[in-house]
Amino acid sequence: MKLGIFTVCMVIILISCNNTMNENNNTMNKIIIFPKGQSATENFTGTTHVQMLTVDGKNFDAISYNVTFAPGSRTYWHSHPGGQLLYCTSGEGCYQEKGEPVRYLKVGDVVEIKPDVVHWHGATPNSEFIHLGISTQLSKGPADWFGEVTDKEYDNATK
Amino acid sequence: MKLGIFTVCMVIILISCNNTMNENNNTMNKIIIFPKGQSATENFTGTTHVQMLTVDGKNFDAISYNVTFAPGSRTYWHSHPGGQLLYCTSGEGCYQEKGEPVRYLKVGDVVEIKPDVVHWHGATPNSEFIHLGISTQLSKGPADWFGEVTDKEYDNATK
Repeated sequence: MKLGIFTVCMVIILISCNNTMNENNNTMNKIIIFPKGQSATENFTGTTHVQMLTVDGKNFDAISYNVTFAPGSRTYWHSHPGGQLLYCTSGEGCYQEKGEPVRYLKVGDVVEIKPDVVHWHGATPNSEFIHLGISTQLSKGPADWFGEVTDKEYDNATK
Repeated sequence: MKLGIFTVCMVIILISCNNTMNENNNTMNKIIIFPKGQSATENFTGTTHVQMLTVDGKNFDAISYNVTFAPGSRTYWHSHPGGQLLYCTSGEGCYQEKGEPVRYLKVGDVVEIKPDVVHWHGATPNSEFIHLGISTQLSKGPADWFGEVTDKEYDNATK
């Protein structure tokens, strides 16, 4: 009988410890810092949310935003006349310049996209991905868009 | 005797649960995304670390950096001819413009510091603080520095 009570208690402790590990893993993989924002459809494939963080182009000649990509979602091909900086804060993502192999991104990675470089960014097929983005030298003009990254292009890049 | 074993088991479970909560709180309060970098002394009071993230001012007209402030540490008073953007990623911090009350900062807060506004930023007295910072319109010139935020100024602002 004593052994029975002891066994039940040990099982409860083990379940409790296992839940702890899962919670910590979830916390480590998904890091929420900025608001998720609104669903974006134009110039994106899949489910993507954008929250503008700064919009005062006049005083800073830059705007910034938090972008959350569901697994498999991504931007269209595009370029920025004034360049763009990406700061990866959660999950796993992809960045690809036209004609180049894909670069896989993880938390803490920074991407420097020079002016007029045609590229796309988004989530890997199996992970959500969040980055802070900054469009620099905004006075050089808005982004140029060149159509969707097709499923074939995405699958080839991430296979 | 059964009651004794049961009580011991419940105490172990409670301690286990308490550890879980502490671990989760630590994970939630301290979010490490970018490298901590090197110890910085010039123009800072207390223990501060800076990791440059982007330094290509030529292509982006901006540079960016991760700054980690130990509790109580802060920048000197300064201003940026081209402005500065701060993105708070961990802990609790302070921002104060000359002649204004302090603004307390938490994870997810964004600070827009317009050109030539004299200010300081740093940790609260009891919390580490980490922010991503971007100096915009770098071609307008480097930061101007105006001496330390004295202990009296800091204590008055954060009391």
